[in-house]
Amino acid sequence: MSYRAPVRDQLFILRDVLGLDTYANLEGFADASSDTIAQILGEAGRFCEEVLAPLNAVGDKEGCRWFPDNTVTTPTGFKEAYRQLVDAGWLSLGAASAYGGQGLPKVVNTAFSEMASAANMALCMYFGLSHGAYSAILEGGSQAQKDLYLPKLASGEWGGTMNLTEPQCGTDLGLIRTKAVPQDDGSYRITGQKIWISGGEHDLTDNIIHLVLARIEGAPAGVKGISLFIVPKFLPEADGKPGARNGVLCAGLEEKMGIHGNATCVMAYDDAKGWLVGEANHGLRLMFVMMNEARLGVGVQGLSQGDAAYQAAVEFALNRLQGRALTGPKNPDGPADPIIVHPDVRRMLMDSRAVLEGGRALMLWTALQGDLADAAPDEAARQKADDYAALLTPVVKAFLTDRGFKAASDAMQVHGGSGFTEHFPVSQRLRDSRITLIYEGTNGIQAMDLVGRKLALNGGRAVQAYFADLDAAVAEAKDDPTLKPFAEGLASVKAKLQEATLWLMQNGFANPDNAGAAATDYLGLFGLTALSYMWLLSAKAAAARIADGDTDRFYADKLTVGRYFVARVLPDADAHLAKLKTGAEPVMALEADAF
Amino acid sequence: MSYRAPVRDQLFILRDVLGLDTYANLEGFADASSDTIAQILGEAGRFCEEVLAPLNAVGDKEGCRWFPDNTVTTPTGFKEAYRQLVDAGWLSLGAASAYGGQGLPKVVNTAFSEMASAANMALCMYFGLSHGAYSAILEGGSQAQKDLYLPKLASGEWGGTMNLTEPQCGTDLGLIRTKAVPQDDGSYRITGQKIWISGGEHDLTDNIIHLVLARIEGAPAGVKGISLFIVPKFLPEADGKPGARNGVLCAGLEEKMGIHGNATCVMAYDDAKGWLVGEANHGLRLMFVMMNEARLGVGVQGLSQGDAAYQAAVEFALNRLQGRALTGPKNPDGPADPIIVHPDVRRMLMDSRAVLEGGRALMLWTALQGDLADAAPDEAARQKADDYAALLTPVVKAFLTDRGFKAASDAMQVHGGSGFTEHFPVSQRLRDSRITLIYEGTNGIQAMDLVGRKLALNGGRAVQAYFADLDAAVAEAKDDPTLKPFAEGLASVKAKLQEATLWLMQNGFANPDNAGAAATDYLGLFGLTALSYMWLLSAKAAAARIADGDTDRFYADKLTVGRYFVARVLPDADAHLAKLKTGAEPVMALEADAF
Repeated sequence: MSYRAPVRDQLFILRDVLGLDTYANLEGFADASSDTIAQILGEAGRFCEEVLAPLNAVGDKEGCRWFPDNTVTTPTGFKEAYRQLVDAGWLSLGAASAYGGQGLPKVVNTAFSEMASAANMALCMYFGLSHGAYSAILEGGSQAQKDLYLPKLASGEWGGTMNLTEPQCGTDLGLIRTKAVPQDDGSYRITGQKIWISGGEHDLTDNIIHLVLARIEGAPAGVKGISLFIVPKFLPEADGKPGARNGVLCAGLEEKMGIHGNATCVMAYDDAKGWLVGEANHGLRLMFVMMNEARLGVGVQGLSQGDAAYQAAVEFALNRLQGRALTGPKNPDGPADPIIVHPDVRRMLMDSRAVLEGGRALMLWTALQGDLADAAPDEAARQKADDYAALLTPVVKAFLTDRGFKAASDAMQVHGGSGFTEHFPVSQRLRDSRITLIYEGTNGIQAMDLVGRKLALNGGRAVQAYFADLDAAVAEAKDDPTLKPFAEGLASVKAKLQEATLWLMQNGFANPDNAGAAATDYLGLFGLTALSYMWLLSAKAAAARIADGDTDRFYADKLTVGRYFVARVLPDADAHLAKLKTGAEPVMALEADAF
Repeated sequence: MSYRAPVRDQLFILRDVLGLDTYANLEGFADASSDTIAQILGEAGRFCEEVLAPLNAVGDKEGCRWFPDNTVTTPTGFKEAYRQLVDAGWLSLGAASAYGGQGLPKVVNTAFSEMASAANMALCMYFGLSHGAYSAILEGGSQAQKDLYLPKLASGEWGGTMNLTEPQCGTDLGLIRTKAVPQDDGSYRITGQKIWISGGEHDLTDNIIHLVLARIEGAPAGVKGISLFIVPKFLPEADGKPGARNGVLCAGLEEKMGIHGNATCVMAYDDAKGWLVGEANHGLRLMFVMMNEARLGVGVQGLSQGDAAYQAAVEFALNRLQGRALTGPKNPDGPADPIIVHPDVRRMLMDSRAVLEGGRALMLWTALQGDLADAAPDEAARQKADDYAALLTPVVKAFLTDRGFKAASDAMQVHGGSGFTEHFPVSQRLRDSRITLIYEGTNGIQAMDLVGRKLALNGGRAVQAYFADLDAAVAEAKDDPTLKPFAEGLASVKAKLQEATLWLMQNGFANPDNAGAAATDYLGLFGLTALSYMWLLSAKAAAARIADGDTDRFYADKLTVGRYFVARVLPDADAHLAKLKTGAEPVMALEADAF
């Protein structure tokens, strides 16, 4: 039942599929040769397997504890493991060297995040959101703010949080009520209640830096009156050490279905001292800096839980003896065959594996776009990478979490009755993974972001370039006998996505409900297309290794799994297209009061 | 958040779709006029809403407790509610009047089961399996066994359990090790361990009658050496009262993801006194009597959890104010619109409703087949009904639980972050419903039962008759303007199912792995076809009411929901067909040791 970090597959994707070494001339990539990365991820893998993974079930069973003095303790072992994460420098892989980080590409940090989240998602959330706080301050903070906060957030010495949600206000941030009153010294006094704050209080760090959305007195109504504030738990002294306790406290913890090891806090701000980040009333832009990073991170979480569950299902299926293969005994000397001989068990494992390996490539590909958006040598390449990162972020978030949850559910199914008991790890995987479809914008919100915002940006520049890339990849591969099925699969699903895009352009403007009713199926179709693209690239890379005489069985297996994807996963595309093309009428026909 | 029993929809299905009153001349149906049933279900609905539903969350939070003296207590309130169920006669609705039951058709009891399970699934499981024990003894017991046990199992005064699973033996019952040693007095001594025994021990009844699969010393290996035994917790005295404690005890409870209110027991049999039911070594047949009833019951559970979750989602969506409708404010005086205005929210609600209403019709239709298999006036009609009950049981079990779980998950998604907290009821719905995909034969086993057994029985007689019935329904409806889309939808999906059936006949014999790899998609396609048929019948019944001048909005809404089913649920059929037609090759291509 022990988790194994997918270092082999990550390295294949980084080196062979994404061509990491071809970027060595770019800033930040010089220290990221595939040999170096192999060492880093190898070591990271062991750390995740040995230090983080054993605490995963502990976190689930113990949960966090809240005390009447508004303190929160994390589960047994979390504090020591967190300390090791900080000391070993794992939390600063992707942070800028100017602020004490290791300055590695985001794509490397993403690979680390996958294995760390798989090993212990609840624990990793404590530093996952610190990264978001780091990025928002890096983007919008003053130099003094950067100097004060970034090194400590980068290393993980201090924690960071995102404070958006209030009881009356989730997705609709225009409804925020938390107020900020300007003070003579340039600071603000923040008062209000925030809910569902991950890591809002805990015992892992000396200080917690809350990034808080609030409304400055007299600000315009709605989202145009929202500002972003830094509100430290302890006010830093002149020397940077945590000083006086600020007026923010944890009023309680949520009882949740999963991620019990992470403290989901109700936060009460009562005249807490805070400092504006960036411009007044422009907090939403900075919030989206955090949010976009968090959305990619949640996609990674979804994938990671699915993969960990898949691994547990494989182990179970190889060891559980029950029934005989339909084609004759495979374990004739035993009382029964291992259930992996049964095609329906194999179907579930292959479904998961085909989506998870393709999804891993997509996750790393998208993270690389984020790197290239900064580091690519020419403006056109930077713009294209930035376009792609924006376009694919909602797909990574929603598609990988939907499918990660499905993989966790299928892994439970492989376990049969054992899976429903808490003696096996899949219940926790299913429960933990379920939040990833919800937080940082529900998957429905991701779909609306894709359809309502990302598609139309800059006259559709991103999606047009993407389609052109897909066409080029198909054209290059279609006559290669090994790659032909991959090229044909991609061509077919891309044609459906293009048809859906055209349908949206023709019908979404006429009636915006058509776009709303189509959004989730459109995103599903986009996800299948993006994974098809990744599978074509993966097959090409594997075939090249084989052609070079590499006899590592990994490459042949990669092609086998990819062919399964084309044959048995891609058919979902037709259903998505047919559903979305019905338009809003059937969806909205029943009056609201008839429900 | 309170559950409302779907009495209105059940009555529509029973009266208008299934034509309950046309069966008044059959045994058992005389007292089941739709007017009588309306009264019974109305009262049952109130009972479920008022007595059972309020204890659902209590059961989840408290769970059952095991004590070192091997006793088990149920959650607060369960005992009193159970007592009320017994006293009011709700548990004996469908039992034979010869044994103190009310002798009503099974279809009526199924309607009751739906609402009772929706209100409190964990509590209802205590008597749900008593029904199975009742049926097995009714089918195979001696007259003395029937006289002794049936009245008390029928009323619910005593509980009943099914003891199949052992640690090494779940689906593969041939591996059973529990042994039975014949005694001079005609009884047996039973020794062994059983696991996952629902209601194996509790404080609700004076006695618990365990039906236990075991192997008589010297019996043939495998499933042909399995016998079924009655093993009472307390050995009945001559007067029928519980007497001496038998050698069976609960050694512990499973920790589970859901159904915390039901005691899932490890049972230890140590020279326990038991009596053979039916013939030695023919226990499997009687076990399947229990099992088939239980499988239908599990389908009902899946549907019921989905419906209860759907109801909670509707309530949330009508009340949660967030964002504005894409087509302009619908609640202009409020701070935001209720989220039910958003097409993607509506999509999830409509998906659930269309499947749940169609699924309810299918569940009741299938239960009615079970009644007609006994009560229909001529042999041909009885045979056909029996064929249909056998054919559709795995579909009801697997399709309704898959879709019920999806409805619960979608209901959580409608709730957003609230849904993941335990303050709202959907987490419990999702956790409780998940077991329904697993127990009484995983859904993969149901698919193999359908494909490997039910299709081929009697030369395919059942499925051929079913196809002929569908064709006739299509032919009758296709020229009616209201029914045309329903007829076309059914014709289209039925053609795909027929194509899939033909493919299975051509390819499943050549390589049984082709059947195994196709089974789950075949069952999914069968479920969509069966629901299409139900929707055509429902639409026909609703249209007839409208044509009769009935202005109850219920009927127009029924047509609207049905049109959604055809437009937005049926497209899944193509994906099922495409996947299953790939055959086993892609599914089995990866070697087992490559996982």
